[in-house]
Amino acid sequence: MAKPTVISLDAMGGDDAPDIVVDGIRLNRVQYPDVRYLLYGDQAILKPMLDADLRQAVEIRHTDQVVGPNDKPSHALRRGKKTSMRLAIDAVVNGEASGVVSAGNTGALMAISKFVLRTLPGIERPAICGFLPTIRGECVMLDLGANVQCDSDNLVQFAIMGADFCRAVLGRERPLVGLLNVGAEELKGSEEVKAAARVLSEEDLFFDYYGFVEGNDIAAGTVDVVVTDGFSGNVALKSHEGAAKLLMHSLKVALESSLTSKLGYLLAKGAFERLRDRMDPNGYNGGVFLGLNGVVVKSHGGANADGFASAIRLAIDMVQDGMIDRIKADFQNLVGETPVTAGEADE
Amino acid sequence: MAKPTVISLDAMGGDDAPDIVVDGIRLNRVQYPDVRYLLYGDQAILKPMLDADLRQAVEIRHTDQVVGPNDKPSHALRRGKKTSMRLAIDAVVNGEASGVVSAGNTGALMAISKFVLRTLPGIERPAICGFLPTIRGECVMLDLGANVQCDSDNLVQFAIMGADFCRAVLGRERPLVGLLNVGAEELKGSEEVKAAARVLSEEDLFFDYYGFVEGNDIAAGTVDVVVTDGFSGNVALKSHEGAAKLLMHSLKVALESSLTSKLGYLLAKGAFERLRDRMDPNGYNGGVFLGLNGVVVKSHGGANADGFASAIRLAIDMVQDGMIDRIKADFQNLVGETPVTAGEADE
Repeated sequence: MAKPTVISLDAMGGDDAPDIVVDGIRLNRVQYPDVRYLLYGDQAILKPMLDADLRQAVEIRHTDQVVGPNDKPSHALRRGKKTSMRLAIDAVVNGEASGVVSAGNTGALMAISKFVLRTLPGIERPAICGFLPTIRGECVMLDLGANVQCDSDNLVQFAIMGADFCRAVLGRERPLVGLLNVGAEELKGSEEVKAAARVLSEEDLFFDYYGFVEGNDIAAGTVDVVVTDGFSGNVALKSHEGAAKLLMHSLKVALESSLTSKLGYLLAKGAFERLRDRMDPNGYNGGVFLGLNGVVVKSHGGANADGFASAIRLAIDMVQDGMIDRIKADFQNLVGETPVTAGEADE
Repeated sequence: MAKPTVISLDAMGGDDAPDIVVDGIRLNRVQYPDVRYLLYGDQAILKPMLDADLRQAVEIRHTDQVVGPNDKPSHALRRGKKTSMRLAIDAVVNGEASGVVSAGNTGALMAISKFVLRTLPGIERPAICGFLPTIRGECVMLDLGANVQCDSDNLVQFAIMGADFCRAVLGRERPLVGLLNVGAEELKGSEEVKAAARVLSEEDLFFDYYGFVEGNDIAAGTVDVVVTDGFSGNVALKSHEGAAKLLMHSLKVALESSLTSKLGYLLAKGAFERLRDRMDPNGYNGGVFLGLNGVVVKSHGGANADGFASAIRLAIDMVQDGMIDRIKADFQNLVGETPVTAGEADE
């Protein structure tokens, strides 16, 4: 029998931790009965939360230190060596676990992951990658905020990692990748974006390069992978969230405006609930840090148990797909073919 | 009696020109009976379109040259001196009109406007400014795509122009202005954004500086004016459009999923139509070029007559508010107080 998948969890990160973490594990027990978990946090709190079934899958690793939601990343990195977040990441570098999930402080999780796990050969900077709903289903987008300024090499590296992630979690064998820009015309856009487009057009890669996409293409599902710098990616992601909230709010106001429309609402209630579920960020929960020597999933701090469960599933999917090795291999294949990654790929 | 407001119109720009242009004038006749129009385009086509009422308000200025939707801006600028777009802009610099509206090629309109009208003293680069719907009503955002890379001086200038625009068209006497960033914490964001924030925090201005806002704050209506570079602004604008389309599509799919929800839809139909109207870009039509010696409104190329009518109203509102003089005065007031604009403000 194959070695079981082991996921380490920061039990203490997130607004509703540790409840969402333990419940998140429970929600995945049926689908993934063989996965094992290392649960880092306060055992006095965690132990009573485990029922007989969970005790089969979970090993508690005690620590009473935590990274606070407002701790500076540099502080968490230097002073937080016994925190639940740090120990959960250490478990990946020690080989005890293959992936880590935390709903804690994003900046600290990125800083510690980068320091402990290091970037993969050929990759200068890790990126945050996540899902967005589209008319055709969903797409992945990166970077969502780890790097506010990116050069063309970074963007090309994001394209490769994003395509590997898309293949691993959405099962698209040959993902279609687009570069976010302000216009489809070749003359528009920043120099970085234009230079990255030239490399992606010329290289023979394992994915298809679509060309430039604009903000409206994200939700239209024009491509499987949207590549951009962390500033624009974060703006786009949060603009989608804001627009979705505005529409759900406006819909509510419109439906409450008359007795007839209220009655209509009651009849169509199931449909509205499906719509709300589809737009619910918990269904798409999990920002993934790509480019590191290990699987790291950042759950939204405000996630509920369903959201945390989906973040855990994401980690399991990446581990079981062997995504990290694929990214490594894809960068190895590029060595010598493009100057973009050759400098760092020969460790 | 005061001199009547005169608006010059590029009759030939836009997918459905000149019909939308003439119908757009007609739709504003009741609200603005005293406004006069200079209509640039092919008189053989335009003349038969004017009824007795329109002939009272409109003067046709014949030309058979047009700027094509795919013409390069540089080409339109050098070779298009007799085009309907160029002549309509010339009317502003000649003093015959106080503002110009076109649904034609955005790049060409910007290039010609910049060349013909020049930027106002103290302003390095014009910006494209527009409206977005919010939970509280609407906000204005700039730059929407004229300048893909901006320094902190540009951002500060956009803040001032955006606040003046907001005051002119939304009637908010002391607008609340925010800088788009990837996080509200002061340590996040690019150097340009952080430097602009320092200037806006320290200056005593005619508007209130809110601080940093994120993508979701746009639709939440956190501020009246969202300031950002043209890359992020364009991405945010189009992300909102894409997300709104996705939601309307998902709503339709959800409502068609069962007989009961279809019946519910029929009862609540009026409510859905109000929602669609609210999200309809034609209601918010008109990107404004701010920072020039004259009012320039760019209507969406795919606008219908309602959309073009609202672009005309926007031009009228700015002219009648005296917005250009206010922007000039606001930059004059800054001279000597801040190094940001002092260099160019003493023409």
